[in-house]
Amino acid sequence: MQNPIEQMANELGKLPGIGRKSAQRLAYFLAAQPKENVQRLAKALLEGRENLKLCSQCGNFTTGERCQVCADYKRDLSTICVVKDPRDVAAMERIHDYRGLYHVLHGVLSPMDNIGPEDIRIKELISRLADSQVKEVIIATNPDIEGEATASYLARLIKPMGITVSRIAYGVPIGSDLEYADEVTLLKALEGRREM
Amino acid sequence: MQNPIEQMANELGKLPGIGRKSAQRLAYFLAAQPKENVQRLAKALLEGRENLKLCSQCGNFTTGERCQVCADYKRDLSTICVVKDPRDVAAMERIHDYRGLYHVLHGVLSPMDNIGPEDIRIKELISRLADSQVKEVIIATNPDIEGEATASYLARLIKPMGITVSRIAYGVPIGSDLEYADEVTLLKALEGRREM
Repeated sequence: MQNPIEQMANELGKLPGIGRKSAQRLAYFLAAQPKENVQRLAKALLEGRENLKLCSQCGNFTTGERCQVCADYKRDLSTICVVKDPRDVAAMERIHDYRGLYHVLHGVLSPMDNIGPEDIRIKELISRLADSQVKEVIIATNPDIEGEATASYLARLIKPMGITVSRIAYGVPIGSDLEYADEVTLLKALEGRREM
Repeated sequence: MQNPIEQMANELGKLPGIGRKSAQRLAYFLAAQPKENVQRLAKALLEGRENLKLCSQCGNFTTGERCQVCADYKRDLSTICVVKDPRDVAAMERIHDYRGLYHVLHGVLSPMDNIGPEDIRIKELISRLADSQVKEVIIATNPDIEGEATASYLARLIKPMGITVSRIAYGVPIGSDLEYADEVTLLKALEGRREM
């Protein structure tokens, strides 16, 4: 039989951001915990995964048919914010300012990783836009190569439908120090300057 | 019902070194994984915890009655290395040099945390030493306040039994840069200098 500690560490090490050392540390920690605690953790993970599905409209995680945002009749149906994954929906919701809907792509275009338009939820977005009252699509993919490529691709598809396509602003993050901003960010911040 | 993502994140956030943000990231990651993967992780944790118990002799984790080290008849029975927890046994074993046995305290003395001699496996160590052929006890608790206090406490208990008590060496770690060594370490390294 394989060493149970190693088995635990192997599985924990598959989690993102958890290296071999951290995985072993966690395995030892769990081995020394009361059984109830480990059972509670395992149960939360199993049940969590079991109960979560994708919202039939936007692709966000949900326990029902529609996610909380899509099911909220007070949201603004004329705006859709396109994000890479459900975590980004949570990030946007935390600012408590955006009142429109979302569309979760579950990935971005990445030729390097063999991820093309068919592999992410672009078809669903287009058909959703086709029969809707959406006036603006805000593309909030990450400001990196894949996020940019995805944004351009979507803009080319959506603009001809007569829908405004916008992109979230680039710039220096609040609370940061100009001195440490990378040059591209600073350039974008300069380009995007607004009159005060 | 509480949000399953939050439930997962809550439990993951109880693991050492995993903050709220990391826990959420992991929860989102797991929510997007195939169910089999989450099941495999949960199974490894549950079974791992289930199958592990403490070695009846040294307190290390084991799946049987005795741990691999204690059950190995080729180990040197005259030396016991005292460590804080089973992780330290694994660390010591990785150097492939130490051939003696271990004793795992499962903690160190820490008045701040209300951990006294009764709360760690000191009694077991003493009775183990009482009827054994042990000639040397190497104390390998961490070089921090609690580890030092525990080492002194043990030395006072064990020396009168006519057993040699030693402490692992302090010094600058191999591969490190003197410039970045803290002063106490450097002082200890100087004090512990050996003729070449």
